[in-house]
Parts: sequence; C-alpha cells; structure tokens
Amino acid sequence: MIFPSHLIEDAINEFAKLPGVGKKSALRHVLYLLKKDASEVQKFTTAIQRMRNEIKFCIKCNNVSDSDFCNICAGGSRKQDTICVVENIRDLIAIENTQHFNGLYHVLGGLISPLDGIGPDQLFIESLINRVNEGTVSEIIMALSANIEGDTTSYFIQKKLASYNITVSTISRGVAYGGELEFTDEMTLARSIQNRLPMNSITN
Amino acid sequence: MIFPSHLIEDAINEFAKLPGVGKKSALRHVLYLLKKDASEVQKFTTAIQRMRNEIKFCIKCNNVSDSDFCNICAGGSRKQDTICVVENIRDLIAIENTQHFNGLYHVLGGLISPLDGIGPDQLFIESLINRVNEGTVSEIIMALSANIEGDTTSYFIQKKLASYNITVSTISRGVAYGGELEFTDEMTLARSIQNRLPMNSITN
Repeated sequence: MIFPSHLIEDAINEFAKLPGVGKKSALRHVLYLLKKDASEVQKFTTAIQRMRNEIKFCIKCNNVSDSDFCNICAGGSRKQDTICVVENIRDLIAIENTQHFNGLYHVLGGLISPLDGIGPDQLFIESLINRVNEGTVSEIIMALSANIEGDTTSYFIQKKLASYNITVSTISRGVAYGGELEFTDEMTLARSIQNRLPMNSITN
Repeated sequence: MIFPSHLIEDAINEFAKLPGVGKKSALRHVLYLLKKDASEVQKFTTAIQRMRNEIKFCIKCNNVSDSDFCNICAGGSRKQDTICVVENIRDLIAIENTQHFNGLYHVLGGLISPLDGIGPDQLFIESLINRVNEGTVSEIIMALSANIEGDTTSYFIQKKLASYNITVSTISRGVAYGGELEFTDEMTLARSIQNRLPMNSITN
C-alpha cells in the first residue's frame, strides 16, 4: 500500500505489528487517532507506556499486578488451599471472568514444548512446588490447553507432585454446553464417551 | 470483564476506544505489548505521538503530508489539469492504491449533511473553486460515496462549477467486477441497467 506521509506510514506499520491487525485496520486506527484531540492521543500512549513500564508480576503466582502481590493473592477472601495452574495471564483472566473459581492461581508462563526449546526450567514450575511445600495446599487444578504441550506439562507437574498428599485434578473436557453433537469434532466426542460421568456427579 | 491490574485495565480501555476493537482484542494487544521489549513499546507509542503531533495538511489539497505540500501536489509528474474530489484521506489512499489515477486530489473533509449540521462552509469547497479559478484545471472527477450526502455534495459542487468551461465527471457505479448479478443489491442493478454504456466505450 502507498501512504501519503511517512508519519502515517510509520504509525500504520507499528499498529500492523499487533496480532490480527492488518494494514487496513491499522490505517483505520491511525486516521481515527488523527481526528482525536492531541490530549486523547496522549492518554492512549501514556496508558500503554505506563502499562509496559510500571507493571509488576505477583511474586507468589506470577499474575500481572500493580504491586508485589496481585489482588487475588493479597485479598484473603479466596480459598487458600486450592491452586489453579494456567499457562498464561489470558487464561487466568478467562477463568476469573467465569466468576466460578474462588481459589488461587499459578501462572506457568508457557508450556513444556521440546520442539520450541521450552523445558520445565523455563517455566514457573519450581515455584509451584515451593508453594505446595509450604503445606497449606490441598488441591491443584490443572487448567492447561488440551494439546500435546498441555498434556506433557500436566503430566510433568503431576509426577512432581506425586509424593505429596494432595489432590491433583484437571478441568473437564467434552462437548461444550450448548454445543451440538453433530458439530463436535470426533476426538472430543470420542473422549466424552470414554470419560463419561455419573449423572448425579454433575454440577449444572 | 475483570482485570487483575489497573494498568492493564487502563491500557485495554484505551485500545477498546479504537474502531472495531472490543475488550477481547484489546486484551490481546495489551498482552502482546507486555511481552515485547520496552524499547519496542516505546517505538509504538512514539510513532503514534509523532503522527498526531507533527502531521501537516497539504495547503493545496488537504491531504495529510509531512510538509506544506503533499508529495502528490509537490511532485510535478502528475497530470496537473485533473482533480479528483474525495470525502476524506481514506478514500484518497484507496484510489491511490489502485495506481490507475495520475491526476491531483482535493480532500473535502466530509460531505454536506444537514442532519449532522454540516454545511458547505465547513468543507473545503471554496478552496476547490479557488484552484479551478487559477485556470489550469480542465476536469474535476467527483469520487464521493453513493448516498444522499455524497449526491448532495456532488450536486452542490457541480452547480458551483457550472459557469466554468471544465468537464465535471463522476466515477462509474454499477455491478462490481467479479460481482455476481444475483448478489448485487436491487438499487445498484436497476441503476446499472438505466446507466448502461456502449460496449466499445469500456476500458477493461
């Protein structure tokens, strides 16, 4: 694409680096900001700069935070004996927004992936074991993606925790609520039959 | 949605103001920038700030520009006697990217819209007439949207230019190239029959 100004072009190129943003959307964003007051654009860039430069990570669970401990770990109202293990902050936010989990989290910062050269040492697994070592945890819920990396990571952590007297569970998988059987992929459908549950054990 | 940090939340809210960006995409952008080097985020915000604060508008055609005259007006290689009238910079960029127009432009900065309180005086129509007054223009091409505002604006400008010995043309409208008749809206199809052209007059 040809642009009439280098300033516009630079801004478009920067926007187009964002995930899922093409040159056309980038142009739309740039022309939108061009029409806004300079103060509003300042607010936009300041919010991004502050987010990047001032953000902290919770020293307990690695969640993003405004201070040393995130508000989930800091507030005492959550169940302290249950830790939900997630790959990243996006997954944490997704679970948090269901408003159906009242325990703590542990963000791994990735999944074990030999192909990408990511081993257990590059993830926050050791700090998870340390938290369990403190003796207050009774259940670890693995909430990782249902793929090879997720399964490998779950398996690795489960092995590490085998000697502790705690429950290690995993989020349930199967046909989505509201999902129609005929449109569910074969793998999910097959597993949902294999891993069927007694009717009276289900929470709706 | 619940977010674990005010810094994250502020940045998400700013991104979500952009056209077509919801909270979920905004979160994706923010977490992407969070993972990037501080210098790259700095580059992103600087490009936007510079674009907003240093951009100029061509004093001849109102196109965005890095200096007083845009590179289309400044470079002498374009046909100086043909002016294509567009609503905004986005439309100019769209036509420019076809690489099939070699004249100059005139950006109106909007369309006449009594409902929105936009009259001819708020648009760069007077400066268009001034350019025609200079005597070097032989054709004005109206490239405005095919709606009431576009038609009103075209009609108003055409009236203004009636006393000049120049051609006033409009971009052709009809069934899109590659477009199938059955999926073309009735209005377009009806007009394309009414405004049919001799086969040998068409440039392909």
